[in-house]
Amino acid sequence: MLETADRLRVVLVGTRNPLNIGAAARAMSNFGFLRLRLVKPYDVAFREARSAMAAAPVLATAEEYGSLPEAVGDCTLVVGTTAVGHRELHHQVHRPEYTARLMRTELITGNVALLFGAEKTGLSNDDLSHCHCLMRIPTREEHFSMNLGQAVAVCLYELVRDATKARLSAKKVVNQRATAGEVELLSASLLDALHLSGYVNPLAVTVTEERVRRMVRRLSLSSEDAELWLGMLRQILWRMRAGFTPQP
Amino acid sequence: MLETADRLRVVLVGTRNPLNIGAAARAMSNFGFLRLRLVKPYDVAFREARSAMAAAPVLATAEEYGSLPEAVGDCTLVVGTTAVGHRELHHQVHRPEYTARLMRTELITGNVALLFGAEKTGLSNDDLSHCHCLMRIPTREEHFSMNLGQAVAVCLYELVRDATKARLSAKKVVNQRATAGEVELLSASLLDALHLSGYVNPLAVTVTEERVRRMVRRLSLSSEDAELWLGMLRQILWRMRAGFTPQP
Repeated sequence: MLETADRLRVVLVGTRNPLNIGAAARAMSNFGFLRLRLVKPYDVAFREARSAMAAAPVLATAEEYGSLPEAVGDCTLVVGTTAVGHRELHHQVHRPEYTARLMRTELITGNVALLFGAEKTGLSNDDLSHCHCLMRIPTREEHFSMNLGQAVAVCLYELVRDATKARLSAKKVVNQRATAGEVELLSASLLDALHLSGYVNPLAVTVTEERVRRMVRRLSLSSEDAELWLGMLRQILWRMRAGFTPQP
Repeated sequence: MLETADRLRVVLVGTRNPLNIGAAARAMSNFGFLRLRLVKPYDVAFREARSAMAAAPVLATAEEYGSLPEAVGDCTLVVGTTAVGHRELHHQVHRPEYTARLMRTELITGNVALLFGAEKTGLSNDDLSHCHCLMRIPTREEHFSMNLGQAVAVCLYELVRDATKARLSAKKVVNQRATAGEVELLSASLLDALHLSGYVNPLAVTVTEERVRRMVRRLSLSSEDAELWLGMLRQILWRMRAGFTPQP
């Protein structure tokens, strides 16, 4: 896991409790994952957590981001976590062992982001629209919501649990997956085209944008294909803006 | 696990931090193990933890013991936890998945105790002498000592990890894949747009068309997504043919 562990980014979105940031960092250090990213942390929480000693190196090198897309821009696989079983989710929700297998494979060649939402609210629909898939720890229905630090510990444990097995099956993956940055660029271009075409209902902009974002992520594009799509969309956009229709 | 879960006793020996007792209780409640036993807890810690709300039922029914032998008296299997790999241990130390299997088997007929030592010192040699075997979570050598609440969460997760497989895998959404006909319709619309936009080099029409067709098939679209894409492309095509560019 050692080389690949460096490609995992644990991303905490909007965390409020400094103890939880510290606990997440400690579990990361325990399991050998040292790249922590914080998206809009509650300021005081981050400063207090930084002063905690237990997992000092992880917190000292933690990176702060203003938005989720920036925090996952260099990642080819973005995995969200959810405590909820019932909520109207547009993603498939998988068990940790399934998602961990995906992540271990992806870590051989690319960066992977593992997202945890804020304590009270979890990840928002907008956050989720940046995820390729979701994982849920099998807690019981009567009390499904886990403490953040404990959820981080369980997810990372599942990642290292079978690490030896993963190494054995580590074959070269031919197609490098598109990074979240490339996919976001593609989503944005597609949305431009849809806006220009009048496809987007002005009363439902956010819903449509989230839907398109999820749809593009479901494509699981390779980096090469993402570039192809982007080239096609650019040409289509250029023509739409030029407002000229050649007769076929 | 439901009936057998009632036979597990999570035993915290000499815990000092109330937050850790609360965290342990919460993880227990998350994973459906409700029998907490405390051996010589630091008094204040226990009282403070009891007042925490998150895992109230577990703490309210927690039992207090003056000695470890009393706390594990009704158990047929006693499993200790240790963070240490090197210490002169007289027990074999096993990985969680091995110990969890033992415990699940034993829980079918008898009571099982899972022991966690105090934060700083872990289980003493005397405590260990009451154990049938030891388990160790595979943390890295440079930082092996886990937070107590997180260690409890990971151990209990390992216990339910396989047991709940059948019950929880029901969450899968069945996505019907797009038919070849739908995919071909989509390819044709995309090619129309590309021709209109001037993307297709007249000297390489066949090559481009084949490439686009392969690319669309690589998407492995669901039937639902294929329809969405088709709708978007139709709108874009309509706007391109109309030859009118609204200003964004």
